[in-house]
Amino acid sequence: MSGERLVYLPLGGAGEIGMNAYVYGYGRPDQERLIVVDLGVTFGDMDGTPGIDLILPDIAWLAERRDRIEGIIITHAHEDHVGALGLVWDQLRAPIYARTFTAAIARLKLDERGGVPDSALNVVGPWPETIQLGPFSVGLVPISHSIPESAGLVIDSPQGRIVHSGDFKIDPTPVVGEPFDPAVWQEIGKSGVRALMCDSTNVFSPLPGRSEASLVENLEALLRESKGMVVATTFASNVARLQTLANAAEASGRSVCLLGRAMRRMVETAIETGLLTQFPKTIAPEDASQIPRENLLLLVTGSQGERRAAAAQLASQGYMGISLKAGDTFLFSSRTIPGNERPVSRIMNQLSEKGVDVLDDAGGRYHVSGHANRPDLETFHDLIKPQFLIPMHGEHRHLREHSKLGEAKGLRGIIATNGMMIDLSGNAPKVAEHVETGRTYLDGSVLIGGLDGIVRDRMRLALNGHVTVTVIVDEEDEPLGEPWCELMGLPARGRSKSDLVEILEAELSQFIGRADRRTIKDDEKLEKEMIRIVRQTAQAEIGKKPEVTVVVSRLA
Amino acid sequence: MSGERLVYLPLGGAGEIGMNAYVYGYGRPDQERLIVVDLGVTFGDMDGTPGIDLILPDIAWLAERRDRIEGIIITHAHEDHVGALGLVWDQLRAPIYARTFTAAIARLKLDERGGVPDSALNVVGPWPETIQLGPFSVGLVPISHSIPESAGLVIDSPQGRIVHSGDFKIDPTPVVGEPFDPAVWQEIGKSGVRALMCDSTNVFSPLPGRSEASLVENLEALLRESKGMVVATTFASNVARLQTLANAAEASGRSVCLLGRAMRRMVETAIETGLLTQFPKTIAPEDASQIPRENLLLLVTGSQGERRAAAAQLASQGYMGISLKAGDTFLFSSRTIPGNERPVSRIMNQLSEKGVDVLDDAGGRYHVSGHANRPDLETFHDLIKPQFLIPMHGEHRHLREHSKLGEAKGLRGIIATNGMMIDLSGNAPKVAEHVETGRTYLDGSVLIGGLDGIVRDRMRLALNGHVTVTVIVDEEDEPLGEPWCELMGLPARGRSKSDLVEILEAELSQFIGRADRRTIKDDEKLEKEMIRIVRQTAQAEIGKKPEVTVVVSRLA
Repeated sequence: MSGERLVYLPLGGAGEIGMNAYVYGYGRPDQERLIVVDLGVTFGDMDGTPGIDLILPDIAWLAERRDRIEGIIITHAHEDHVGALGLVWDQLRAPIYARTFTAAIARLKLDERGGVPDSALNVVGPWPETIQLGPFSVGLVPISHSIPESAGLVIDSPQGRIVHSGDFKIDPTPVVGEPFDPAVWQEIGKSGVRALMCDSTNVFSPLPGRSEASLVENLEALLRESKGMVVATTFASNVARLQTLANAAEASGRSVCLLGRAMRRMVETAIETGLLTQFPKTIAPEDASQIPRENLLLLVTGSQGERRAAAAQLASQGYMGISLKAGDTFLFSSRTIPGNERPVSRIMNQLSEKGVDVLDDAGGRYHVSGHANRPDLETFHDLIKPQFLIPMHGEHRHLREHSKLGEAKGLRGIIATNGMMIDLSGNAPKVAEHVETGRTYLDGSVLIGGLDGIVRDRMRLALNGHVTVTVIVDEEDEPLGEPWCELMGLPARGRSKSDLVEILEAELSQFIGRADRRTIKDDEKLEKEMIRIVRQTAQAEIGKKPEVTVVVSRLA
Repeated sequence: MSGERLVYLPLGGAGEIGMNAYVYGYGRPDQERLIVVDLGVTFGDMDGTPGIDLILPDIAWLAERRDRIEGIIITHAHEDHVGALGLVWDQLRAPIYARTFTAAIARLKLDERGGVPDSALNVVGPWPETIQLGPFSVGLVPISHSIPESAGLVIDSPQGRIVHSGDFKIDPTPVVGEPFDPAVWQEIGKSGVRALMCDSTNVFSPLPGRSEASLVENLEALLRESKGMVVATTFASNVARLQTLANAAEASGRSVCLLGRAMRRMVETAIETGLLTQFPKTIAPEDASQIPRENLLLLVTGSQGERRAAAAQLASQGYMGISLKAGDTFLFSSRTIPGNERPVSRIMNQLSEKGVDVLDDAGGRYHVSGHANRPDLETFHDLIKPQFLIPMHGEHRHLREHSKLGEAKGLRGIIATNGMMIDLSGNAPKVAEHVETGRTYLDGSVLIGGLDGIVRDRMRLALNGHVTVTVIVDEEDEPLGEPWCELMGLPARGRSKSDLVEILEAELSQFIGRADRRTIKDDEKLEKEMIRIVRQTAQAEIGKKPEVTVVVSRLA
């Protein structure tokens, strides 16, 4: 293969939901000019990544080829699309392109997460405007989603057109921002589309999606009929939802108060960038207590149960002087992301204990999804009429189901997961290469590899507890005194009801007393034996094999 | 209050779903004779209780009054009702009562979890048979649930009748076991019921529950139409589901193979106790490979994604020589318990990677709940017509909603959560006492208190990592050599790109070098300062404050 080729390479987001990062390339093999679409994060959790704040795709492959990167395009300002940019830009140093609002929100986030110079971030107008990035011409086409100014991409290359859907839904009445415009997409499809890379999130949702505007009536009724204070939580970035809630507040004689930094920032940015023109004047949290409860709507962060966000604080001790009581209403105008059920239900129960009425999305009255459901995906396929369908933004089961959906209509597809470089040049998409990929963790302030073993060690500590053993050996290779143990995260006593530390120390002393000089002289052997004794003794006493640190101090 | 009183005291299961333990008492205050209903567990998880296998209610209150316990009644053999019995019976030593199948399953589980002598476990026939337990007469009334021989209790006392629903649904056609019999419950209600303690699990499910028998047709169609091997997972204790699946297998020419010890044990016990009379002969796993895939149905454990169960094994490397491949079908005939979404979807994605078609309960075609939905709860209330309604078996929000449901129909209720002793003697239920309660953890082989701090320490290790610091001090209170550090679960280098251990040791050496003799002599001060230095230095380097163990070895 000596000619040019057109390739697609997902580095994140294909085989998982979160941390999106997609690469397109055109040129001779291993000399392709590259563009990067989105650089997102996902969030760590106690379950699998304790102590990890953010998880991002491993971009080593890209960093090694950074001289070939023509640009980085951000489709929209959700964390799973832009969150990694500030953390890894330094390794890529390519110009960034995004629409106005996306760029404004991205800038706020970037400033928190390391360095992207102002000059690197370029604002691009909507399609039919395009930017030329090496062999690619790229247009950012307005598409409806749960954040304003989301963009699908039209990527034209010498080997044909690619449509990269980005996250989208088909919403003719999105309340804020541009409606989905089928005519535009049909027109884009008309000139022939080689491949459609398409959002797969809701492929298992069988009914057509509902418009953001369908919530207006329900939310207005809720705010009108509620007796006390109403608190509503949703993703701060769902600006349309905030507008609907604020409208409903006005209609029911309630003042709006924004709680949580993300909420205030998002509304400010949406006003500054001209997206929100009708948003009512909000009141400051410190003035909220002056207003009768039944005249208040709080819009708060923390819909996923985040411990430090406003929702969790209100459910426990209160937030900025505001506390909830019986007769108030708390609305989750949101969907609980799988995995967050426990923290969300903790909040619900705390609210219940206070006598606060909790409403959630059960029944779909107060929330609609931002992603295209199964029939909407089919509609989109029909508008674009691509030669190849390549599902993205989904776990493997979503990608596979989406691929099947396409196949049923005669669309040729391939299931491309992270690290699979797909050659789009021929009559069928085929795997050109497998690129090593993985996950990078932000651990405190350090980026570490997902397979470095650091987090695995911490999980072992959490499961098994820790024993520190110290022993001093003198100049003659004679142990000085007895070995000492200290426990962390272990019960003080077990089966025999005696002190576990004493039992461990007795066993270790006995071993040290009997050990020959060769063992005592050999750090590695001594450590290995003492670890074995601690684990074995603990297993018998408390039914657990702890992690052990042995420190042999040799007097020199 | 010098007269007798009738009291109710939940110790587990009221304010949470899981680890049920309810106490009823009758007599003069603080001299009540007691009966205990159920002693269940819930399962620990990495998220909140790393390293903990089981969580059980703290039964200290009961243990201190064990001479007053007349008996322990087990309503049914689910882990959240019987799982703690073997672990705590030694502290209570009261006779246990259960129906035949419950007793048989309980016995199998008890033998794994410590000591309950054979003689302590008594089999009781169904209502109208009753047992006399001190001032109480107790009957075990057959009630439909997702395990055979579930019992609701009729507890008669000198101050009136209590109905304790146990876990139940209203199922006229449960496939295996006794149907819900409204006439029996109406009759029980007729003589006047003072209080109904009632299952609240599904109070938020608005539609009437569906019968187990409603699945027969769907499951038969699925097994008939599937081309390859079919694997179905459900709770092993759902004997009716196993029967339905086995029937469908027979109808579609498939042999049944049971995988997972719990699955085999449950079917064996159900056959031995006469519950299953029509179950087909199963084939051994080692013979499965002899049979064409399309003639096989595997019934397997692990519907909740349990890592070591058959489902998880089949999804990854295979199980007992059986492996899955493209064209096979995997059915989750179960609901994913909130909190288990991640492990379950991991399995689904692994299966998807193999090309196995995965079906879950989306749409309710292949699973029905074992608990009464909202309208069914109302039906039950109407049959029993209690004076008081006291919701149980639910988180706070479930109890509150259930209480409201009763109030709307004029039923007087109270929200009683764990530790609230409710006096049922008067015209309204009222809180008589708050009993100290909590959670006990099974940590390895040791029972520890939920608030002992052991698990909290382990979670800190998981979040923050661990540093061991050792320093040797000689007979003259002079440090001997430099302090040493060892890391566990921490990145090797951070901001400065130098070795973290070296940076820490340099800081500690500097401190030790400058410290005055008074500090060096004072273990506590020395330790505190060194911890502070390690945490502060690490924070600057890696953005994390580790847990620290300091060992000061003094040569004496």
